[in-house]
Order: sequence, then structure tokens, then C-alpha cells
Amino acid sequence: MATTAAQPATAAATRPFGSAAALSCRECGQRYDLAPRFACEFCFGPLEVAYDFGDISREAIERGPKNIWRYAALLPVPDNVAELPNMNPGLTPLVRADRLAAELGMRALHVKDDSGNPTHSFKDRVVAMAVEAARTFGFRTLSCSSTGNLAGAVGAAAARAGFRSCVFIPAGLEEGKVVMAAVYGGQVVAIDGTYDDVNRFCSELIGDPAGEDWGFVNVNLRPYYAEGSKTLAYEIAEQLGWRLPEQIVIPIASGSQLTKIDKGFRELVALGLVEDRPYKVFGAQATGCSPVARAFEAGHDVIQPVKPDTIAKSLAIGNPADGPYVLDICRRTGGAVAHVDDAAVVDSIALLARTEGVFAETAGGVTTGVLRKLLAEGALDPQAETVVLNTGDGLKTLNAVEAGVTATIKPSLDVFKAAGLV
Amino acid sequence: MATTAAQPATAAATRPFGSAAALSCRECGQRYDLAPRFACEFCFGPLEVAYDFGDISREAIERGPKNIWRYAALLPVPDNVAELPNMNPGLTPLVRADRLAAELGMRALHVKDDSGNPTHSFKDRVVAMAVEAARTFGFRTLSCSSTGNLAGAVGAAAARAGFRSCVFIPAGLEEGKVVMAAVYGGQVVAIDGTYDDVNRFCSELIGDPAGEDWGFVNVNLRPYYAEGSKTLAYEIAEQLGWRLPEQIVIPIASGSQLTKIDKGFRELVALGLVEDRPYKVFGAQATGCSPVARAFEAGHDVIQPVKPDTIAKSLAIGNPADGPYVLDICRRTGGAVAHVDDAAVVDSIALLARTEGVFAETAGGVTTGVLRKLLAEGALDPQAETVVLNTGDGLKTLNAVEAGVTATIKPSLDVFKAAGLV
Repeated sequence: MATTAAQPATAAATRPFGSAAALSCRECGQRYDLAPRFACEFCFGPLEVAYDFGDISREAIERGPKNIWRYAALLPVPDNVAELPNMNPGLTPLVRADRLAAELGMRALHVKDDSGNPTHSFKDRVVAMAVEAARTFGFRTLSCSSTGNLAGAVGAAAARAGFRSCVFIPAGLEEGKVVMAAVYGGQVVAIDGTYDDVNRFCSELIGDPAGEDWGFVNVNLRPYYAEGSKTLAYEIAEQLGWRLPEQIVIPIASGSQLTKIDKGFRELVALGLVEDRPYKVFGAQATGCSPVARAFEAGHDVIQPVKPDTIAKSLAIGNPADGPYVLDICRRTGGAVAHVDDAAVVDSIALLARTEGVFAETAGGVTTGVLRKLLAEGALDPQAETVVLNTGDGLKTLNAVEAGVTATIKPSLDVFKAAGLV
Repeated sequence: MATTAAQPATAAATRPFGSAAALSCRECGQRYDLAPRFACEFCFGPLEVAYDFGDISREAIERGPKNIWRYAALLPVPDNVAELPNMNPGLTPLVRADRLAAELGMRALHVKDDSGNPTHSFKDRVVAMAVEAARTFGFRTLSCSSTGNLAGAVGAAAARAGFRSCVFIPAGLEEGKVVMAAVYGGQVVAIDGTYDDVNRFCSELIGDPAGEDWGFVNVNLRPYYAEGSKTLAYEIAEQLGWRLPEQIVIPIASGSQLTKIDKGFRELVALGLVEDRPYKVFGAQATGCSPVARAFEAGHDVIQPVKPDTIAKSLAIGNPADGPYVLDICRRTGGAVAHVDDAAVVDSIALLARTEGVFAETAGGVTTGVLRKLLAEGALDPQAETVVLNTGDGLKTLNAVEAGVTATIKPSLDVFKAAGLV
């Protein structure tokens, strides 16, 4: 079922998932209808969206909306998605980081700064997919398990699109994330436990009649939801002038984002939208939650779950579902997975702010920290064109930085001069 | 000196201010060279930028960068501005607010959501202009008096562009604004006093040798700086499909933004880029700092300064420099200036969040509150196409909203059901 420009205008209603053709098991390849399911009935492998892409040109994309819907033909969304009420995230800045590059001795460095999204994290991208799926499946409540950013993104998108929402977070999150989850008027339920406890609770709720008409964006809508991260790959390639970067540093929470960025790059190559050239994928974790990095270092294929203890709460998933796929991709492309401690995270947030005016959340401190570490170790090539991701906003993790007024003075020039501030 | 497409590629260096031709006194019309000056030597009136525009087409704009530099030909910036290190703000979403419109009984309402800018307020737009002027004039330190948002915008832009920065704020600002001002590594000096005290202090410093190579973005660079607000007008018109709105609600701090949006609309008409049709401009203040609204109500031309007392700190300027011009514009266009109290601000932030998924700062609560008030009073037409501005981000004014977790529970389905949350 190839899409062509000759399709009738009424096609939208008959193609709620656009060029998506099926769900497909990542392990055994078994195919399923496009339904709210997420695990293979045969091998319990995760399902992902498979497509029958038609012809897609750079020009058609460039004529599209100035948000992720310019890539609608590559996503599981209806053709008229840009007209539906949703948050329209994406097309966030790719910052040419010349001053940071100079400090690190690099030739060409870019920061993909996703704090520019509507709720200031990359989660708006994935939630936008889940909202369209929830609409199609007739769910009435949007839900999720969240380390914070996702809760805000779900709350906002549910409000805009007219869904009820009820989100689940671990108790003790940063104030900014809690307020942002709650301000849109949905329910916010804190669970005494870790994110992994929250996740298990949600899986139970889905199996219960109480959760019957609930769309959990990152559980029963996960195959659709996850595709949203592909838009990071599309944007980076388009913003580089339709070219893949040579190296990319991506944070790892569940690992889904990293796998989808790789998928996005490969799709662009397959569709002839970019030249096929090698790229290396690097995964970044905080030391206090580094099960994938530990497996990479040890040469293992199996991830040993951990109990997280790090200020990088948005990455604090101790049992990352996509960990094995992350190992595959980083090994296949010649990249690596590494970790940095919380002190390096704080220091790297300050470095990024001071050199580029980008105020990253802790996850951006993790990627920038890993960038520095792998450059020092020689695993990253300072001459290769590199992209580092900042997936969230420093305003949501204020406690992670120590920044305040230099001095408080009376409004007098003499006092100002005497204070040695000039 | 008309600009034409035939200009040589080296023109940038010889046109540091693009099509800007002079500074011109808003009171007596006296013209000055493009220098770091802000007041007329003869009548002490404020200076603003005058242009000799060439031909400017919609198509040329639409081919431009996906930020304010698509309007570079309408701004006092070099032709190659998009290649220089700056924050590249703008092209923030114009949200079609159908759910809010339905609640308010309106036909066509849009929210211009400027929280999507790099430091999450409209200030990135004005600072971007000041940075280019500071570069041209050879200043080494960027500075400002600020109620918070501007300090963050200056800190970030200075970091990106390689300036030293030292900003001045009143003591007691919101934590998010203080951290965001300080995180980029510049100096942040808190002054014991109001914003107006801070402003007076900065005027003193400019006259002192200590401030010699300092560019105060909103004092000695103010004529350039202020032009950045015109980009809000350009974007709104382009995003409406090259059409002026019929009504627009704009917050008033100094009043500069409102006057420049009006200037931007009139330029678009003069250049033939939009149809000349009437539009009404409405100004919005918080009751606790409403000198312009009071003058409007009383039919006065003179603004009586006040001592601010409101949670809308970003609008807390008790002696607004552009107040008289705001009165002129709102009267000339058939609009109004109104105020709402802090309770209405809080309530309106919640309304906007609940209906549209937009988390506004207090200034957005003020505009939305005034929108509701003037609709109720019949001063705003519910049938006319209306734009309301949100100029900042709720994450920076967390204390203004009461939003938190609905409940904290153990990870158990039974507990969840017993809590009556489903």
C-alpha cells in the first residue's frame, strides 16, 4: 500500500495511521494489526510499527508545517494530523556549538536542544504520536508512568486534545516537574517507590477492568509513542542540510529514544533522503543508574537491573527495556555506552550554559559529560561532525545547579564600586 | 538607500544595521546617526529606529530561517545576522485555542505562546537585536535592569556570543528567574529596591566611567533592542496566513512591546505584505501595578507612577516609559487598557493550562484575565479574530500556581481503587 500524491482528499479518514502497515515483533518478526498492543503473543518480544512508505521527497517535507508534522508521512499518524488539536512539537534548534567545540578541541559540534518543545522536553514528540493513537482507538483517559517530563507532556497534550488524564510518578520528584504535571488539571498520583515500581503498577492497572479505556502512552500505546523519537533523527539530518552526523551522543533512560533515532537515520538512507555514510552512536548514562554502560564495558548482552541513585532523575530507569537493542546499535555502529558521575553532570550543565547559553536539565549534563569523557579517552573523534542531545530543561531541575546572585547591594554606585563588582 | 536583491555579497560588512537609516526622536522627529544613544538632545524624547525599506516579499520571508531572522530585512541587524552566534529566537507557536474560545464564547482565538523561545520568554527577541548592536559598537559587557526574564535572556545571549555579562535585578525575584540569570556564568547583582530603583541605578552607571564599555540592552541600546518586539507582529500576521488579527491583547510592563507590535503591523501594511484592515489593541496590567490602565479609565494622558504590589513581577514597572504611547495606540485603534487582580491572574493561568495545555507565567495570566474581563464588559467582540499573548513561562513563576500531586499511594491496585482515584 504505497502512498501517492494522487490519493483522494478523503484518504485521511481511512488511513488513521498513515503509511504504517502493521505492528511487527522486534524478536520474531510476527506481524499484528495496528491495535493497542505492545508485546508479541508468541515470544513476548516488543512490537514496533512497520511501514509501507511511498515516495517521500525533501521538497515535500520542506513545504510542510514547521513542527514534527512535516514528517507525518514517516509516522503512524493520520494524513490530516496537523489540523487536529495537539501540541505540535518539534523543529527545535540545532545549535552550532562553536564555543563549546573550541573548549573541547572539536571541529564541528552541534547541540540538539529539545528544551524548546511546548513542555520543554523531547517527550512532547512521543506523546504527540500516542495522542493520535488514543484518538483512533477511542480511549478516554491518557496515562503514563513517568520520571517527570513525560507526566507534564501527557498533562498538556491531554488538555489540548480534550482527554481526561491521570499520570503516575515516583514520589519525591523535582518541584518544577510536579507542578508542570499537575497544572493542566489532570490527576497526578505519586507512588511510594522507584520509577520501576511505578511501571509495574501501571502494567497491573492495564490488565484490570479499571484501566479498560485508558491509553497508557508508554505501555499499551508504546509502539506508536516510541516512533515520535524518530523525528529527532529527521530534524537533525534536515538541519545539517540533509546529512547524517558522523557521531551522536544520546541519553539512555529506557533506551527507546536511542533505538528510534537509529531507526530514523536508517529510514532516511533507505528512502534516499540522505547519503548512506557511517555514523557512530554513543549512549550516555549517569553513574548512579548505568546498567547499560556496565553491560557495554563488560561485553555482556544481558542488562543487570540496578536501583537508581542519581540526580539525573529523568534517566533513572534501573531496568531499561530497550537496553539490549542499545548495546546492539552502539556496537554495530562503532560507538560506545559510557557513564559519568553526578559531579560531572553538574559541571557539564555549567559548561554548556557558559559556552552556549543552553540551560540543560540533568540529562543534558549527562550527554555533555559523556561527550567530554569519551573525547578524553579517544573513543570520540574530535574531527568528526558530532551532535549531542539536550532532551530537557534546566528550569525543571533547578536544585541540580548552584547558581544565584553574585551580591545584593543598595542602589548606589559607590556601594557597587566598593563591592568590587565592576 | 533602498535595499535590492542586486546588492553585492560583501554588503553585510558595510550595513551593520541593514535597512535601518537613522535614529529618530519620537517627539520632535530630530534624526541622529545610528549610535548608542537613546534620548533626544533637544527635547529628551525617546529615540527609535527609522528605516529605508526596499522591496520585501512574502516569498523572500518564507524562504528565510525558521526564526526571527526571516524578518532581518525589517530589523536593525546586519544582512548576515543568521550566521553570527546568537540565540535565534522566534517563530514560536500561534496556538489555535478552540477549547478556550468555546469556554469564553468566542469564534476565533489564538494564543501566541512565546514560552517556546530559548530562555522561555519574549525577551530573547529584543536581546537578539541588542547583541548585534553591542557587537557593532564594540561593547564588551552586556547588561540590563530586569524584572527577571530579561536577565536570563541577556545571560544566555552573552554566553553564546562571547560577551561578559552583569545584570541587575530587584532583590526577591522568583527562584527560577534568579537561577536562569546566573547559570550562564555572568554576574547577577540584586538591588535592595523596586525595578524602578534598579533602573535608576543603571542610568547612573551608564553616565559613570565604570560603565564605559557596557551595553545596557534596555538603556543605551534601547532603540535597537525595542525593535525586536516587532517580530511578534510579523509572526502573528504570517502565521494567520498573512493577515492582521482583528483584536490583540498585549501585556504592559514598560509598554514598549505594545507600541512595537503596533509599529510592526503598520509596517506590514505599508509594505503591502498584509491587507490594510482595522485592528484593535488592548493593553493588560495587573491591578497591583496598573498605572496605564488607571490613566486610560480616567481619560488622562499622563501616567501617575505607582509602587508595584502584584505577583505579576515581570510586569511590575511602576513608572512605564512608554505608557503615554500605549494610551495613544489603544485609543486610536478603538481598544482599551484594563487590569485584573492577582486572584484572576492565578485563575486565568489555570484556565489556559486546562483548556489549551499552555503553562503561562503570570504575565500570560494577566492577558488572559483581561481578555475574560473585557469580553464580559462587552469591550472585546467575541466574533472578531483575536490573539492573546503569553510572553513567558509558568516554570519561572511556580509559586503563583497551586498545583501538586492528587495523592501519594503505595504501588498497589487495591490502594489506588480504595483512594477513589479511578
